[in-house]
Amino acid sequence: MDRYLDDFTIGERFESRSITVSAEEIVAFARQFDPQYYHLNPTAALSSAFGGLIASGFHTLCLTMRLFFDLDLWPKAIVASPGMEAIQWIKPLRPGDTIRSEAEILDVRASRSKPDRGLVTTSHKTWNQSRDLILSARCLHMLRRRDVMD
Amino acid sequence: MDRYLDDFTIGERFESRSITVSAEEIVAFARQFDPQYYHLNPTAALSSAFGGLIASGFHTLCLTMRLFFDLDLWPKAIVASPGMEAIQWIKPLRPGDTIRSEAEILDVRASRSKPDRGLVTTSHKTWNQSRDLILSARCLHMLRRRDVMD
Repeated sequence: MDRYLDDFTIGERFESRSITVSAEEIVAFARQFDPQYYHLNPTAALSSAFGGLIASGFHTLCLTMRLFFDLDLWPKAIVASPGMEAIQWIKPLRPGDTIRSEAEILDVRASRSKPDRGLVTTSHKTWNQSRDLILSARCLHMLRRRDVMD
Repeated sequence: MDRYLDDFTIGERFESRSITVSAEEIVAFARQFDPQYYHLNPTAALSSAFGGLIASGFHTLCLTMRLFFDLDLWPKAIVASPGMEAIQWIKPLRPGDTIRSEAEILDVRASRSKPDRGLVTTSHKTWNQSRDLILSARCLHMLRRRDVMD
């Protein structure tokens, strides 16, 4: 793709591939980053509010962004990501679920102080195989401008 | 600790232990969740805006929350986390950095519709060994109330 800041339009959408998440992956992530019992222990999780093992919300978030980064929209333009906003964990991600994600361009803004770059704001939404929305979030990305590079 | 919603006070602070992050861990995380070149390839990363390998911001976020969850403040009270706000990646996390994190209680709010629970809002800040603030974020946590449980 190899896009620069100037190549994005507000309202553009990008669809990811889908991936299926196993109980083993959920537990491995939980062990490393979020060892709360309903992410870690399938038996203990039966008595949680969710009635069984669910992925850490951070796992769902990281998978969402992995699906997005795999679109490889801006391999040369990316400088950094300064932040995220409004992460909502709407429904749990359960073992065996197949998820896909969509990104929409919410804003494209050239920097006033640094004319070679600017910020893109993306909205991310992730669904499971039942078309339930499970996560939404917004992310900022600092991208180089095409005009200045060429 | 075993705290419930009613056991938290606005302004309370909780300090984490510290951890040191290796290049291998940074690359392993990037391979799984954020394969952008400056998180994945130490040589290619030399030409990035950061001049070398840095951890994915999602890695810094997950480590921050791991340090927080290891405080084990509410093993019985936690129901779920509905979301996060205002994640800012302020400085990069580099190989060999030692980070620690602090959580502050920003808000404690009983639910009106469900009297057995409520929401705690936490502010998270993470520093490196040079006392540079590298990440800040806010997180919501739904907790059970002690009064109703006992």
